[in-house]
Amino acid sequence: MNPDIVKERQNASFDVQKLTYILDGGPEKTKRRREISLVLNDPDFDEEDPNFLSRSERYEQAVRKSAQMILKLREYGISDPAEINCYKSVVRGNFHESLGLHYVMFLPTLYSQCDQEQSKKWLPLATSFEVLGTYAQTELGHTHLRGLETTATFDPTTQEFVLNSPTVTSIKWWPGAGKTSNHAVVLAQLYTRGKCHGLHAFIVQLRHMDTHEPLPILVGDIGPKFGFSEVDNGFLKLDHVRIPRENMLMKHVEPDGRYVKPASAKLTYGTMVFIRSLLVGLSALVMAKSCTIAIRYSAVRHQSEIRSEPEPQILDYQTQQYKLFPLLATAYAFSFVGQYMTETYYRISGDINQGDLSELPELHAVSAGLKAFTTWTTNTGIEVCRMSCGGHGYSRSSALPDLYAEFTPTCTYEGENTVMMLQTAYLVKSYRQAKAGEQLRGIMSYLNDMEQRHVRAHPASARPALVDINDLSDLVESYKLRAALVESAAKSIQQELQKRRSHEDAWNNSAIDLVKASDAHCHYMVVKLFTDKLSEIGDPDINLVLTTLAQLYALHGIALNSGDFLQAGLLTVPQMQQIPVRIKELLCLIRPNAVALVDAFDFPDKVLSSVLGRYDGNVYENLFEWARRSPLNATEVHESFHKYLK
Amino acid sequence: MNPDIVKERQNASFDVQKLTYILDGGPEKTKRRREISLVLNDPDFDEEDPNFLSRSERYEQAVRKSAQMILKLREYGISDPAEINCYKSVVRGNFHESLGLHYVMFLPTLYSQCDQEQSKKWLPLATSFEVLGTYAQTELGHTHLRGLETTATFDPTTQEFVLNSPTVTSIKWWPGAGKTSNHAVVLAQLYTRGKCHGLHAFIVQLRHMDTHEPLPILVGDIGPKFGFSEVDNGFLKLDHVRIPRENMLMKHVEPDGRYVKPASAKLTYGTMVFIRSLLVGLSALVMAKSCTIAIRYSAVRHQSEIRSEPEPQILDYQTQQYKLFPLLATAYAFSFVGQYMTETYYRISGDINQGDLSELPELHAVSAGLKAFTTWTTNTGIEVCRMSCGGHGYSRSSALPDLYAEFTPTCTYEGENTVMMLQTAYLVKSYRQAKAGEQLRGIMSYLNDMEQRHVRAHPASARPALVDINDLSDLVESYKLRAALVESAAKSIQQELQKRRSHEDAWNNSAIDLVKASDAHCHYMVVKLFTDKLSEIGDPDINLVLTTLAQLYALHGIALNSGDFLQAGLLTVPQMQQIPVRIKELLCLIRPNAVALVDAFDFPDKVLSSVLGRYDGNVYENLFEWARRSPLNATEVHESFHKYLK
Repeated sequence: MNPDIVKERQNASFDVQKLTYILDGGPEKTKRRREISLVLNDPDFDEEDPNFLSRSERYEQAVRKSAQMILKLREYGISDPAEINCYKSVVRGNFHESLGLHYVMFLPTLYSQCDQEQSKKWLPLATSFEVLGTYAQTELGHTHLRGLETTATFDPTTQEFVLNSPTVTSIKWWPGAGKTSNHAVVLAQLYTRGKCHGLHAFIVQLRHMDTHEPLPILVGDIGPKFGFSEVDNGFLKLDHVRIPRENMLMKHVEPDGRYVKPASAKLTYGTMVFIRSLLVGLSALVMAKSCTIAIRYSAVRHQSEIRSEPEPQILDYQTQQYKLFPLLATAYAFSFVGQYMTETYYRISGDINQGDLSELPELHAVSAGLKAFTTWTTNTGIEVCRMSCGGHGYSRSSALPDLYAEFTPTCTYEGENTVMMLQTAYLVKSYRQAKAGEQLRGIMSYLNDMEQRHVRAHPASARPALVDINDLSDLVESYKLRAALVESAAKSIQQELQKRRSHEDAWNNSAIDLVKASDAHCHYMVVKLFTDKLSEIGDPDINLVLTTLAQLYALHGIALNSGDFLQAGLLTVPQMQQIPVRIKELLCLIRPNAVALVDAFDFPDKVLSSVLGRYDGNVYENLFEWARRSPLNATEVHESFHKYLK
Repeated sequence: MNPDIVKERQNASFDVQKLTYILDGGPEKTKRRREISLVLNDPDFDEEDPNFLSRSERYEQAVRKSAQMILKLREYGISDPAEINCYKSVVRGNFHESLGLHYVMFLPTLYSQCDQEQSKKWLPLATSFEVLGTYAQTELGHTHLRGLETTATFDPTTQEFVLNSPTVTSIKWWPGAGKTSNHAVVLAQLYTRGKCHGLHAFIVQLRHMDTHEPLPILVGDIGPKFGFSEVDNGFLKLDHVRIPRENMLMKHVEPDGRYVKPASAKLTYGTMVFIRSLLVGLSALVMAKSCTIAIRYSAVRHQSEIRSEPEPQILDYQTQQYKLFPLLATAYAFSFVGQYMTETYYRISGDINQGDLSELPELHAVSAGLKAFTTWTTNTGIEVCRMSCGGHGYSRSSALPDLYAEFTPTCTYEGENTVMMLQTAYLVKSYRQAKAGEQLRGIMSYLNDMEQRHVRAHPASARPALVDINDLSDLVESYKLRAALVESAAKSIQQELQKRRSHEDAWNNSAIDLVKASDAHCHYMVVKLFTDKLSEIGDPDINLVLTTLAQLYALHGIALNSGDFLQAGLLTVPQMQQIPVRIKELLCLIRPNAVALVDAFDFPDKVLSSVLGRYDGNVYENLFEWARRSPLNATEVHESFHKYLK
C-alpha cells in the first residue's frame, strides 16, 4: 500500500462504510452488491485488456462474455431486474455488452407489442436466445420517426408484407447488432391498398438459424466508432424482402384490421422516464469513477511546482482542487438525483396503476432535462479528470479515455441533449398557467409566486441583499429564482409570435433562451435535491462533509453563472466577490476527506480497470507492467524495421 | 454535387478565393500550398484508413509513410522549413508521424548542444537517418526537470559515463520512439567525483545498427493511448549502461571541465515561443477542420424538428448556429493570432540577433498563455462540433473522434495548460510596475492607466455606460479593462503574504485568481488581434463578413463571462440584456455565408478525411461505402458465432 494513500485514509473525519450504505440505499443493498461483485473472481470472466486487442478480437471477447453472462445468471439464479443490472454493470466494467440490444430493445418490444399468438411463438425463442434480436428504427438519413422512409407494403395475394429501403438514406443504421443478430424488429411505414398508415413494427429474420449466413438482405457492421468497439452496430438494406403477414406486431391491430391506440399513450412516458433515470444514474456512476481515478492518483503523485523538498502531492495544489472537488461534489449530487428519479419513477408507477397520470407530463419534461444536464456535465467532467492526471491520463491504462469514449454517446442517444432541453414546452406552459393565476403543484410550484416576486432582470443595486452565501437554503432559493429565466424565453416566443411568425419559427427563434431556461431549471433541481438529501442523513460526521460538498456545488455553480445571478439581482456584487473566497475555504475543508469520499463509491479495482485509480496507490510499477504487455512489445524488433527502415 | 451545398455556395456574399489568400498570407502562398498538396495524388501515399487497422498495422503504415516522406522531400527538393511543415501537415492528415521526434527534438538538440567534434560525427549520421533518434527527458514519476532521477556517473578509470535508472519512477517514459529509434538523447543528473552537477544530455545507443535488436537496455512501447496510435512512445530503463565520455553533449563544457552557461539562457525562450506559436496555429487549423466538417454536414442534413415538409436543413436551427458559428469565429480569430505570433517571433528573432532581448520575457509569458487559451478552447470546440453532427459524428468516418483524440494532448504537452496559465508571474510583475508608476511598453501597456481608471469591481450602477455593444473598438476596450482582473490576483498574493505565508504558498493560494487573470488577458489579446486584423483587409465584402464574425466572437465571449463584466461595472445590466438579442442577429447574418466561410479554409477532402465534411456534400452514399469496408464485414459470419453463439 502506498504510504501517501494510507495517510489520506487515516485523515478522514467520517466512517467511509456508512457513506457507502447511503449511496447504495442501505447496508443490505451494499452487502448484496458486494456479493454480486464476487463474480469478478470467476476465472471464466478472465480476459485480456480490450485496449490490447483488435476490433474483431474485442468483439469476439465481448460475445464470449455475453454468452458467459447468460449462463452465469441462470446458474446463480439472479432474476431481479435491479440485481441483473448490478451484475451486468460489474461484469461489463467500462465497456459495453455485445448482446445489450437484445435485452434493452428487442425483448421489451416483443413483450409490449406481440399479440397473444405472437407471444406464444416469439417469446420462448427470444428468451432462450435461439432468436437473437435487435431493433432497427433510425435510418442513415433520418433519426426522427417522421422522416423514416422504409416501407412495408401488404400483398394480399400472398398475405405477405414486402419490406423495402428504396434509397441510400433509408438504409437502417441502428444501434443494433449487425453481425450478431439473426432477427430484427424493423420500423416501417405500413402501406395497404395504396394508403400509408404510418409507422409499424415488423419482425424480420436476417440470418439463417443454423449457418448464421445472411438471408438475401444486405446486413453488416457500420464500422469503427469513437468507442463501443464491443458492439457491432449494424446496417440493414431491405430490397423487397417478403415476410409473413403474422410478423407484423399486432397487439394494437384488431382482427378486422382496425388500429387501436393503446389505452394511454402516456404510459410510454413511463418507460422513457425510467430509461432517462438510468442515464442520470450512469452519469453519477461515471463521474464517480473519474473522480476516484483522478483524486487517488493526485494523492500519490508528487510534483515540484511549489517547492522542491519534499515535492508536494498534486492534490495540494489549489488549481487541482478547483478542478476536481467541484466534480466530486457533482458526483454526489448526481447520485442523489438518480436515487430521487428512480424513487419517483416507482412511486408514479404506483399512481399509474391506480389510474392517476397527472404527474407524468411534468416528470417526463423534467427527466428529459435532467438527462441532458447530467450527461453534458459528466461528459465535460471526465475530460477535466483525465487532463488533471497529466500525460498518464492520456494512456489507455488510466481508463479515462475509455470512460469518455464509451460515455459520450449518452449526450446523443435516448434523445439528443439539445432536443431534450427543448422539451421545455412544459416549463413555458407552466409559466403561462402561473401567470394566469393557476396554482401549480409539484416541482413547478415555485412559479406560483413569480408574479408577486416580480423576479426579473434589473440593476443589482435596486434589490436588497437577501442571501447569506453560507446558508444552503438561501442558495437553493437563489437558484429557484434564477430558474425564472423561463420568463425571458416565454417573452421571446411571445414577441416572435407578435411579429407574425409561425409557431414553429417563434420557437426556433427562441431556442437559445429555452435551452438556457431549461438548464437553469435543472440546475435548481439538482441543488435542491442535494440539499433535501442532507436532512435525511443522521450521522453528524457524514452530514457535515456532505454539507460542505453541497455548498461547494451550489457556490461553484453560481460563480460559473454569476452573470445570471447579478442580472436578476439575486446577489449583489460584494456578495459575488465573497464567493471565490468562500470556495477556496471549502476546498481546504474537503481536502483531508477527498480520498475517503471517493473510497465511499466502493469501486472494486477490476471494475475501475485503471492503473492510476488503484486502491493501493501503487501506480508506477503497475503502469510499467501494463506497458510491457502492450502488443507492440510482443517482439523486440517490429517487422516494419525490416520492411521500411533497414 | 449535393444541391443543398451548391445553393449555399451560390448565396455567399464574398469571393472565397480572396479570403483563402488572406488566411494563407498572400496568393503566392496559396499557390505554393496547393502545389505541395498535389503530393496527395501520389500513389506511393495511398493507404488504408487507419481506423480499419490494428495498432501494429497502423504503426507499420506510419513508418512506411515516414520513410516515403523522406524520399519524396529529397526528390522534390523541398528544404524550406515552412514548406516542409506544410508538406508534412498535408501528408499526415489528421494523424501523427512516427519519426516526428527525430526531427522535432533529436536533430535540434544535436544542432544546439554538440561541440565541433561531436557535430562532425553525429550530424551526418542523423541527417542521413542511419541514426534514428529520440529525446528521453520525462520519467515515469517525473515531468518536472528538477525531479528527474536518472544519473550519469563519470568513471575516470574507463573514461565512461554510467547511466542508471535506479527506481521504477526513474524509468524514462518519453514522447519518443520505443520501437523505431536506435539512439536517444538522455537527460540525466551528472555526477563526477561524488558531486552532482545537475542535468546534462547524453547520447545513448539503444539498438544494434544492423539488426535493430536492443542493446542490454530495457526499451519498448508504453502501450496504447487515447490517440497517437501511429507513434510508438517508448520507455527506457537503464541499468548501469556505459557510454564513452565523448557522448556527453559538450558544447557548453570547456576542455578543463568547467561548465559555461550559454551566452543568454533567454535565447531558449525564443524556441519555446516558436513551438507555442506553432501550437496556436495548430489550434486554428483543427478548429477550422472541425467547423468545416460540422457546417458542411449541417447544410446537407435535414431533420424534421421544426416542420415536416420540406424538412429544414439542420443549419437553420438557431441552437445549431449558436453551437457552430461562435466556433467558426474562433477558428478565424485563432488563425489571425497564429499569424501574429509567427510574425512576432520572426521580428523578435531579428531583434535578438541585434542584441535586443527586451521583449522576450513578455512574449514568453504571452505565448504560454495563448498556447493554453487556444488549445483549451479548441479541445472543447472539437467536441461541440462532433456532437452537433448527431450519431454520425460518433462514427470514425466523420474524422471528428480522431481530430479530438490526436489534438487533446496539446493541452498537456509543451507545458501543461494550467502551469502555462500560471506563467503570469509576468502579468503580476507588470501590474506592480504600473502601480509603482513605471510606464510599460508593448502588450502590457494597458496597465499604465489602471490607476487613473481605478478599474475594479463595484456595483454596476455606479459606473457610467461607456460601451456601444455594436462597436468593436468599445468591446476591445471592455476586454482590456476586464483583463485588469490581474489586480485581484495580485491583491490575493499580497494578502497571503501578509498572513506570513511563504512566497510559494501565497502563489498557490492565489492560483485560481492567477489562472482567471491570465485567461482574461489572453481573451483580450485574441479580441484585439482579430479586430486589428480587420483594418488590414481592403476587400469590403470580406471585411464585412469578418467584422460580423469578430463581433460575434467578442459578444459571445462577454455573454459567457457576463459576471466579470458586470462585476467590474464595464457593462450595465440593460446592455448585457441586449447582447443575446444582438448575438441572434449576428447568427442570422452569418448563416448565408457559413459554408463559404469554411470553404475558404481550403482543406482538400483527403486532408479532412471526413465523410461528413466532403466538399461535394454526398455524405450518405459514401458513409455506406465506408462502412462496407469495415474489417468486421470481411466475412459474412464472424468466427465468434461458431465459437460462442451457436
